[in-house]
Amino acid sequence: MQTRVLGANDLADIVTAVGLDRLLDELIEALVHALDDHDEEVLVTPDRDGFHYEKPDLGLLEWMPSMELGRAVAIKTVGYHPTNPVQRGIPSVLASTALYDTATGELVVLAEATLLTALRTGVASAVATDILARDGEVAVGVIGAGAQAVTQVHAISRVRPLSRVLAADASAANAESLGERLAFLGVPVEAVDAERLVGQVDVLCTCTSVDPGQGPVVPDVEHRPWLHVNAVGADFAGKVELPRALLDRALVCPDVRSQCIAEGECQQLPVDAIGPDLTQLVKHRARYDVHRSTTTVFDSTGWSLEDLVAVEVVAAHAERLGIGALIDLRPDGSDPYDPYALIRRRVGW
Amino acid sequence: MQTRVLGANDLADIVTAVGLDRLLDELIEALVHALDDHDEEVLVTPDRDGFHYEKPDLGLLEWMPSMELGRAVAIKTVGYHPTNPVQRGIPSVLASTALYDTATGELVVLAEATLLTALRTGVASAVATDILARDGEVAVGVIGAGAQAVTQVHAISRVRPLSRVLAADASAANAESLGERLAFLGVPVEAVDAERLVGQVDVLCTCTSVDPGQGPVVPDVEHRPWLHVNAVGADFAGKVELPRALLDRALVCPDVRSQCIAEGECQQLPVDAIGPDLTQLVKHRARYDVHRSTTTVFDSTGWSLEDLVAVEVVAAHAERLGIGALIDLRPDGSDPYDPYALIRRRVGW
Repeated sequence: MQTRVLGANDLADIVTAVGLDRLLDELIEALVHALDDHDEEVLVTPDRDGFHYEKPDLGLLEWMPSMELGRAVAIKTVGYHPTNPVQRGIPSVLASTALYDTATGELVVLAEATLLTALRTGVASAVATDILARDGEVAVGVIGAGAQAVTQVHAISRVRPLSRVLAADASAANAESLGERLAFLGVPVEAVDAERLVGQVDVLCTCTSVDPGQGPVVPDVEHRPWLHVNAVGADFAGKVELPRALLDRALVCPDVRSQCIAEGECQQLPVDAIGPDLTQLVKHRARYDVHRSTTTVFDSTGWSLEDLVAVEVVAAHAERLGIGALIDLRPDGSDPYDPYALIRRRVGW
Repeated sequence: MQTRVLGANDLADIVTAVGLDRLLDELIEALVHALDDHDEEVLVTPDRDGFHYEKPDLGLLEWMPSMELGRAVAIKTVGYHPTNPVQRGIPSVLASTALYDTATGELVVLAEATLLTALRTGVASAVATDILARDGEVAVGVIGAGAQAVTQVHAISRVRPLSRVLAADASAANAESLGERLAFLGVPVEAVDAERLVGQVDVLCTCTSVDPGQGPVVPDVEHRPWLHVNAVGADFAGKVELPRALLDRALVCPDVRSQCIAEGECQQLPVDAIGPDLTQLVKHRARYDVHRSTTTVFDSTGWSLEDLVAVEVVAAHAERLGIGALIDLRPDGSDPYDPYALIRRRVGW
């Protein structure tokens, strides 16, 4: 068996071949399927862990393992180095996912995961939105109009027709440029300030990089009673995007309960005020229909299960399409008792 | 920056170019240097963690992270799937190490790590042996004559001249074949039973795969008063190779104190009976000279720091020699706010 390595260009090849809309639909379907089947004995997702440092610059490197028992282990590593764009012209978030076969321990796929992370984060919001947002055409607002906003809006467009998109950002340029970045959707996109935005949308996505202690970013103003919020930005102790008053009015649904209590909007709530998690929403979808007309929040901190699902969907396409570099990583089995067997053959001992 | 992928053949190329003896010497020097400098604020090595499962077969997949602050993070993943050799003709242990730059979060190197693991395990024993074993020519015994025995004996030959090697193994064929596998050393190798072996050696390496609860594998018989033991096999709760009586007579030095108490020979000892760890041995080498004439044990459970050192030495050679596949893994930085930038250019949106 060879290891398939999928770089950013390979992923672009896969997306181009499959079609971005179809790929998102497949990712949504695969995540729903994984959650519908979800059994903690079978899908095992330990808490993420990592190194946080301040030398040479502020940064972190985390690992997010996940296992589907009897089949696959995925380990995503994510680096966050905020000085990258300005100092080096590369993205601040760099991620890769390694996929292992649990029958053999072999590394099956190593995939660049920056795009995959953006996609799976959008997909998780789409799954929650499909269950909790009002039916029919929706106006979507984004507060924080960076990279995540693109996949949030795009993924939501796969579960609801969009009437329009409103965008607010601390950087006016970001809010203004979102229209170009979403032009492929054929939906009007308008930059507005957050105060005006909140009252005019049916679905709101918050995906800012507000610093811990500096939130919320959503003003506590009147909103539609059926507002559904995908709160994507909070992923760090002290970092929150939503006002407590909004959370108190809403059914708040975490992706991973323990992680949301530590790092998400759920930091602001007593534990017994937290609603069903994403798995429960999917498993008992009909039970939550009534919440399409009430205020709801999906507290999305990012789940390794989503990464496992995403890399498996992409890996299957890569294999089918013959995309990626195939590398002979592992040693041959010619003599399991001799680590020097290969060297011996080279040098003729 | 491109990611360098080093498969088993690439590692054989590096070893062939550098020379196996010289590479071992460099690894020994690099590990001593890392330990001599060791500061827990700078070299951070969290406990390993992983998935253990019984489906589809018994196996485990573990990750071993390590960081040198301000420079590099290495994450080794190790799979152990004992049915591999018989059912699939591939090694039971498959490992790979990912090396990241902590300035950017980029994946710099992905290296096959089965050979590297065998080498670094030998190297750690060589470092301990150099400090604790008697001076001059030594007779080395191995109990468990599999893959680890090869690198144990070879690494020890870099710090002491060898008079002869004695080998015992539950499989007579393994014990008999070690001579061929070690022929390159030009030292007589003889298969004997463990009872006879123990009394005739100055340095003993235990590297068996005895099952938990089935040890010890070293008979409690008379041995030379200056015997130094490298106990390599114990790495699992309940798995031990040495008789308690031998440990009670010896200065027992763990590689990683907490891990040895959980998984190593130190399981058998009260905590206050455990001696200095490998870092202390290296930092205060002269203090332990007196133990060259006493019985000593290096309790080696395997340390992620050793993996970090090994992959860095090999990565530097790979870069110098231009060995390995260079892969464009990461996305370009053309528009950090648009995850679809690359796709957009492909499809001409």
